[in-house]
Amino acid sequence: MEWLEASTENCPVQRTLDVVGEKWTLLILRDAVNGVHRFDDFRRHIGLSESVLSSRLRKLVSADILKTVPYQEPGSRSRNEYHLTRKGWDLWPVFMALSQWGEAYAIGPEGPPLDVRHTGCEAPVRVVVECSAEHSALTPADVTARLGAGARHRP
Amino acid sequence: MEWLEASTENCPVQRTLDVVGEKWTLLILRDAVNGVHRFDDFRRHIGLSESVLSSRLRKLVSADILKTVPYQEPGSRSRNEYHLTRKGWDLWPVFMALSQWGEAYAIGPEGPPLDVRHTGCEAPVRVVVECSAEHSALTPADVTARLGAGARHRP
Repeated sequence: MEWLEASTENCPVQRTLDVVGEKWTLLILRDAVNGVHRFDDFRRHIGLSESVLSSRLRKLVSADILKTVPYQEPGSRSRNEYHLTRKGWDLWPVFMALSQWGEAYAIGPEGPPLDVRHTGCEAPVRVVVECSAEHSALTPADVTARLGAGARHRP
Repeated sequence: MEWLEASTENCPVQRTLDVVGEKWTLLILRDAVNGVHRFDDFRRHIGLSESVLSSRLRKLVSADILKTVPYQEPGSRSRNEYHLTRKGWDLWPVFMALSQWGEAYAIGPEGPPLDVRHTGCEAPVRVVVECSAEHSALTPADVTARLGAGARHRP
């Protein structure tokens, strides 16, 4: 069997996109990675309607990617902040990879609005695909993809 | 100025999603990374209508992410294959990061349909965010994001 004959139903890229692949969802998570937690802050910063934001936040909480944390401003009722869970933080390399491509190909010469550096040493960070044995950075030409244990025939 | 006050208009994540953030577009590129090149192969494997596939391929070619390469089967007219450009291949870490998260959180115990390994050494590959000076793997807690040269006030 080859990739073309294999079902994509359990492809991990596709399954991930089923959960977070919608553009507003990704932008909400991008803001959560950058420290945004409150409903009105997401809404204003991303430029989203309340109903779209509510539905996306609900989906992310039910997928255990965001968790609610109550807070209360003086004189107001208790409300929820939205914080990334461990599962949510594990999407961090996705955002760093999207950002790296965008910095190379999709923004102007003035540079990106956020500058992410290793705390302390101040060197820029980068995303690499590496070999888990030799810990060396790889290119697509360095890897071989074979059908794995989960490969199923396309119906 | 803080992130919440900065315009997201030139955010590299957002700009990348503007080009490739649509789900079918990402699935077409996932297949291209895995060696799919022909219109009918994309259509059947992903399960896409001809019109959606045509429009997405056209957009990816005009964005210089895919390039057309003519081929001709005996007795048929000349047609185009779609191959990733360098700019397209530079999206590889995005797909590896999406796949890594999906393997951890979104597929069953039977494992993924594709098993990607370092050619020769056979070790699994992984995506890491690393410090470009020390080449050590980083977690979100290891980095600091400050507003960069491209930060603009939100209108």
